[in-house]
Amino acid sequence: MGVIDQGKAPVKTGSIYPEPYASQMAGRTSLRLGDLGGLTQFGANIVILQPGAKSSLRHWHLNEDEFVMVTEGECTLVQDAGETVMRVGDCAAFPAGDTDGHCFVNKTDAEARFLVVGTRAPREVATYSDVDLKVEIADGKATFTHKDGRPFEGGKP
Amino acid sequence: MGVIDQGKAPVKTGSIYPEPYASQMAGRTSLRLGDLGGLTQFGANIVILQPGAKSSLRHWHLNEDEFVMVTEGECTLVQDAGETVMRVGDCAAFPAGDTDGHCFVNKTDAEARFLVVGTRAPREVATYSDVDLKVEIADGKATFTHKDGRPFEGGKP
Repeated sequence: MGVIDQGKAPVKTGSIYPEPYASQMAGRTSLRLGDLGGLTQFGANIVILQPGAKSSLRHWHLNEDEFVMVTEGECTLVQDAGETVMRVGDCAAFPAGDTDGHCFVNKTDAEARFLVVGTRAPREVATYSDVDLKVEIADGKATFTHKDGRPFEGGKP
Repeated sequence: MGVIDQGKAPVKTGSIYPEPYASQMAGRTSLRLGDLGGLTQFGANIVILQPGAKSSLRHWHLNEDEFVMVTEGECTLVQDAGETVMRVGDCAAFPAGDTDGHCFVNKTDAEARFLVVGTRAPREVATYSDVDLKVEIADGKATFTHKDGRPFEGGKP
């Protein structure tokens, strides 16, 4: 492999979240550059946020390191301590197991983009900081529960 | 963790290559952003190439996926099939085990930079495409040999 033809990258839209959370992800798209390039050990995606869109529910990963670089526009990083505006070239790191949840919001009137790299662990748990939700991913299957482990009764209509 | 203060990133200069190869890496520096951000599962570095500098000997990895995005200037990717000029935002992927070796050369008169992400495997072998050299890295120790396994007799004076 070599140079990635970004025009041919698989485009991911929508969300695997149960409702009411999936609808909150409107305006977010991602380009699966690493997949197109044949990478399997980590994901390398360009996330595109329309004005007002957010990257995800605020969350932290148990087993997977994550790295972000803003590549276009401005993204507002939200964490426990508050908000940080990030511009092109700014980078952030979220080590596995760090419980300070994060997400990115586009608070501008222009499209924003960032590169996100995340390890692909055989088993992963992501915990959502601001809502009563977590997800366990194993064998490619995502199971959403409340934080105490009860099944999450939401779901797309 | 969160936003990385790039001004505080550890700066790596020089090369672990034996001579005469280490000297060929003059003009290359890298900023260890992932290390500064507490990441351990993959490296995330900004490589800075002065005019005329190259990123590495042309090589391929046995066990580690690698991903690159140009962030400043122009970099020329060199592979088996020839050269490809990459500009800001262009990306490339080098899956583990793909024997098509790669390196980046700055053929311009201005500084060039790229982000490189590479998995950290417990044991790794990198093979250098254009010279009789390979390296095995295990337990943090790098051992350079000829391609047939004989010890490499070079070394810094």
